[in-house]
Amino acid sequence: MATARAARGLTYAAAGVDLQGKDDFTESLSALMKRTHGPRVIPNPGGFAGLFRLDFNERLFRKNYKDPVLVACADGVGTKLKLAIDLGRFDTLGIDLVAMNVNDMIVQGAEPLFFLDYIAIGKVDRPVLDALMRGIVEGCRRAGCALLGGETAEMAGLYQPGDFDLAGFAVGVMELDRAVKPERVQVGDVVLGLASDGVHSNGYSLVRKVVASAGLDLNADFAALHRQAASAGPHAAPAAGQPNGSKRPRSTRKPTQPAPRATSAAPAASTLGEVLLTPTRIYVEPILKVLRAYRVKKVIGGMAHITGSGLEGNLCRALHPKVDALIDTRAWTPPPVFDVLRHFGGVDDAEMRRVFNMGIGFCLVVRPAFADSVAAALRKAGERVSVIGRIVKGSGKVIEQ
Amino acid sequence: MATARAARGLTYAAAGVDLQGKDDFTESLSALMKRTHGPRVIPNPGGFAGLFRLDFNERLFRKNYKDPVLVACADGVGTKLKLAIDLGRFDTLGIDLVAMNVNDMIVQGAEPLFFLDYIAIGKVDRPVLDALMRGIVEGCRRAGCALLGGETAEMAGLYQPGDFDLAGFAVGVMELDRAVKPERVQVGDVVLGLASDGVHSNGYSLVRKVVASAGLDLNADFAALHRQAASAGPHAAPAAGQPNGSKRPRSTRKPTQPAPRATSAAPAASTLGEVLLTPTRIYVEPILKVLRAYRVKKVIGGMAHITGSGLEGNLCRALHPKVDALIDTRAWTPPPVFDVLRHFGGVDDAEMRRVFNMGIGFCLVVRPAFADSVAAALRKAGERVSVIGRIVKGSGKVIEQ
Repeated sequence: MATARAARGLTYAAAGVDLQGKDDFTESLSALMKRTHGPRVIPNPGGFAGLFRLDFNERLFRKNYKDPVLVACADGVGTKLKLAIDLGRFDTLGIDLVAMNVNDMIVQGAEPLFFLDYIAIGKVDRPVLDALMRGIVEGCRRAGCALLGGETAEMAGLYQPGDFDLAGFAVGVMELDRAVKPERVQVGDVVLGLASDGVHSNGYSLVRKVVASAGLDLNADFAALHRQAASAGPHAAPAAGQPNGSKRPRSTRKPTQPAPRATSAAPAASTLGEVLLTPTRIYVEPILKVLRAYRVKKVIGGMAHITGSGLEGNLCRALHPKVDALIDTRAWTPPPVFDVLRHFGGVDDAEMRRVFNMGIGFCLVVRPAFADSVAAALRKAGERVSVIGRIVKGSGKVIEQ
Repeated sequence: MATARAARGLTYAAAGVDLQGKDDFTESLSALMKRTHGPRVIPNPGGFAGLFRLDFNERLFRKNYKDPVLVACADGVGTKLKLAIDLGRFDTLGIDLVAMNVNDMIVQGAEPLFFLDYIAIGKVDRPVLDALMRGIVEGCRRAGCALLGGETAEMAGLYQPGDFDLAGFAVGVMELDRAVKPERVQVGDVVLGLASDGVHSNGYSLVRKVVASAGLDLNADFAALHRQAASAGPHAAPAAGQPNGSKRPRSTRKPTQPAPRATSAAPAASTLGEVLLTPTRIYVEPILKVLRAYRVKKVIGGMAHITGSGLEGNLCRALHPKVDALIDTRAWTPPPVFDVLRHFGGVDDAEMRRVFNMGIGFCLVVRPAFADSVAAALRKAGERVSVIGRIVKGSGKVIEQ
């Protein structure tokens, strides 16, 4: 990767920019990216931009799209990357990056088409970049979208040695008349919650603060920490001002199927660091399956990807101003990682719920007559589904009780 | 922006994340973003993603698109932002950000549709964020694309106080059979160069190194620095090994129109810092005009956005392996800023050309019979156009002589 040049004076290399190293990396990417390319990606080696056909051919395109709407998101992974840097593990952050974008996109009812990444790093570090890209490719594979392009920026002076930042952009498509939108939500609809795989990619500034304040060792045995947290007392104090159990949505008192145990996807024997780095779950495949299966009936009233601001802050985005969502927080068990964070950080319940997903990573608002069959379809697709609430008359609020 | 909460233990705010400040900022963005929204943007307040119809209505869509290809780019502004941070001026970086993306996209023959931004900052700083967004909105306006969404990430611990990073992502569309691609380039084609507005957004690690090494004051009068650089000797030494003027492309010896003086867009009285911060020129409008006017005849064989790696490293991407582009570097005068950088940095000519655009920001490869009329159309659209070279038999190289 040496770019030393026999220049009289200053060179780009002397200024800290390794064009050759970057070029080598970019070249190695082509093969990796191609693994995510279906027939809709038009090869464009050396091109200035990525090319994606809306369909394989003109006839199919005319058949499949009447009035296509492009759906686009931008997101990063936040300070979860600082945790990865501390741990020296870079192969799953890319999954988080793709997840944060595509999960937002499917909320609208869109099919993800392609993804682009932006990696900014102080100094080209091939092992780190390679691991980041492996994760991004794996994320794209899980989301069924093409990695169409990206940018790797070497920014000497902006990032500390070993530091980097990651951003991603996803584009999808949906037919205009199939858009999932708040107006569709109706009183009586059932709220289904899909289990998260832990903290996902939000709240890591608090996570890291907890780890630092409590002096936790990222290599500590997670199960032991959890035993310590669990033995310290009740870990799911009810929210203040919601003492009345009778207000709980009926459908959650008697789940039509036994609610599967919400467990962390991380194996029990792993370390705290491993549990905290567990990649964000990608909900694309099960959600698209359900959307396709119920296309005509439009049984999905709304969806929400639960990120920063928690269940309340995100599910409300799926509601219109004349309904509330009543959520029964006893309908699922938050994964152990949240007990650990609450206990060792002394974080109060309201703050926990405001910052973290608390075990529910994605919500669907479904017509009551179809709640069972949608839940069954989602379980068949591999999701852990709980009936967590119901839509009632209201003013656009999410009420956790 | 205070988010202090009466929590028992740790809070997100205590961990350095100002959710409220970020929300306030996000809200203020809506109005700003709407200025860039045409009728194809579907309002989606509080939504998880931006929505963009491929056309205003189904009938128009069917008429306008037979086999649409989506074209996507991701890019940042590199360490030009460190220069902006040093100068405390943040209102033009957004223009650079949009420019770096949309100029790449039009190379393919695509019409930019929308843009998304990613801003990562150590601590929410409203004046800085507002200025960055004003620039992005202005860039989108100049590029005729909608600012459809974005992400503002507060990353305490990753960015030093006052530091931030910017990334952008643009999506456009083109009809498959109108794609501009290397195979179209023919022997005899003429290379037109559009003047840059200075350094644009590449090579700033070297720029900053020059400023630091030479102890230049960013507030120094630029004209005085240029006089000093110009009086030091000839500032456009010909490239080694290219002494034979007779090999120069004929069309550049006798321009069919007087070549307009290539001047920096920065006013003569400005400071070094102002000249270096001059935003990247956005070539969307003139290029789309020319593409539309010559749609049927397909007179544009190829295009190149001149960024990092200079004219040679980028124009070669528009060529196929059986042609060369012969460039006459005397066909235009590099803006004064390059004399200053070369002189004060002692940067040799080859390195200058390898890192900087040297005054040509965008190239078109045009059928010879149409070179005059295309150049005239581009001038009418406000561009400074020079005939800078010709396509000859070769092996995919760009030869500057």
